[in-house]
Amino acid sequence: MKKRKPLEGITVVFIGAGNAGTHLADAFRKAGASIPQIVRRTEKGLFTNKFNAEADIYIIAVPDDAIADVVKSMPEVEGIVAHTSGSVSLDALKRFKKHGVFYPIQSLSKKRTLTINAFPICIEGNTDEVAEELMECAGGISKHAYILNSEERMNVHLAAVFANNFSNHMFVVADEILAKNNLPFDLLKPLILETAFKVTEMTPAQAQTGPAMRNDKKTIAKHKKLLTGNKKAAAIYTTVTDGISSAVKKKK
Amino acid sequence: MKKRKPLEGITVVFIGAGNAGTHLADAFRKAGASIPQIVRRTEKGLFTNKFNAEADIYIIAVPDDAIADVVKSMPEVEGIVAHTSGSVSLDALKRFKKHGVFYPIQSLSKKRTLTINAFPICIEGNTDEVAEELMECAGGISKHAYILNSEERMNVHLAAVFANNFSNHMFVVADEILAKNNLPFDLLKPLILETAFKVTEMTPAQAQTGPAMRNDKKTIAKHKKLLTGNKKAAAIYTTVTDGISSAVKKKK
Repeated sequence: MKKRKPLEGITVVFIGAGNAGTHLADAFRKAGASIPQIVRRTEKGLFTNKFNAEADIYIIAVPDDAIADVVKSMPEVEGIVAHTSGSVSLDALKRFKKHGVFYPIQSLSKKRTLTINAFPICIEGNTDEVAEELMECAGGISKHAYILNSEERMNVHLAAVFANNFSNHMFVVADEILAKNNLPFDLLKPLILETAFKVTEMTPAQAQTGPAMRNDKKTIAKHKKLLTGNKKAAAIYTTVTDGISSAVKKKK
Repeated sequence: MKKRKPLEGITVVFIGAGNAGTHLADAFRKAGASIPQIVRRTEKGLFTNKFNAEADIYIIAVPDDAIADVVKSMPEVEGIVAHTSGSVSLDALKRFKKHGVFYPIQSLSKKRTLTINAFPICIEGNTDEVAEELMECAGGISKHAYILNSEERMNVHLAAVFANNFSNHMFVVADEILAKNNLPFDLLKPLILETAFKVTEMTPAQAQTGPAMRNDKKTIAKHKKLLTGNKKAAAIYTTVTDGISSAVKKKK
């Protein structure tokens, strides 16, 4: 007997075919869900194709600032309507009787293949039943699904901005410093991977090292001198060094 | 016939048994080098055991601010004396006829096992011969060894501070935000791993996403509001957001 896939029998329509939409549709399909339609949208949030399928769940996977327009343009539907945003509140969908949030905590890009379970999912629903239904779906594509309210989710999103966007900008600055000296970014790749692996085994506070952590003023002064002429990087150096120092003091 | 290991016949004495010393000694041993002695030091840079072995290379693997004291306390030696610091100049060892630098670009901690080749090595020597000899050694424990002068190495070290120490501090702040909301750091682990993997496949500039990148003022304002009362994190948020914005403008 063929094993039943976890989301067999569930019908999901996607609105938006960007990074998040593409990855999620893929994950749902692999988990057995039926996806009769992916509704694409234009720049203005209008649809390039018409809704022609009934679904249990409609997932709006568009940029935050396009959600309001998409909501306005959608027909009345019976199923649950959920958006995938970390920072837009549940209320943005209150037009629909059953509405919720399906926020994957991951940096999704079309170029990268992710394994299932590589994105924890934060769920919210306007009723307990909606939340439960969305949790079932989330459980079909990820081992890590959590029910969070809008404020908690917003804080997760903020934390994710630090963990992903901001740490990536640290790599951007590092790359600039190397490029200015005709040195390849490859030099740092093993270090960057190790930095990430480390915090899967110990807390980030335990993993902290470096001149700021040691209060090594001599090295900090040398670094600041090297950053003369690179105002933005110098500002980051000062602010983050200060942040590390006070985190160390708090720990003591 | 047993295959000859790359560093067979080479004798290395280590000064310092901390994170870097332990990992490097381990890598040298695996590559076939003979390590007759690891000289431990006290807090003041004095030695707890006496030098009792002749060696081809003496590797000083101690914190930056202890190097000067170690140099003073060492006997005259015939072999190459090299330190492992990213930010201390070659000249710190000029007391010795043959001196150099053996700087592994990695965050080494005793608790973590690293595979060989997981740390690129930057080499410098006071003569071409010294540099060549150290390059041979580096080649025995890593596929990625580079000859860099002191200024280049200092820039690599600065870039490594951004890529490792500073990105780790972003994880510290993220952890604080989650903890304040009673949410587990586990939520962010897949995202952090993906952030690191991404820049092994594309440039950090290409990998950049997020509200600052999109100039999404609404989300940025929401985040700043959430950070009220957390001055250090708010300062980092503002400075890094500003850094991302101007990096985006430069790219255009």
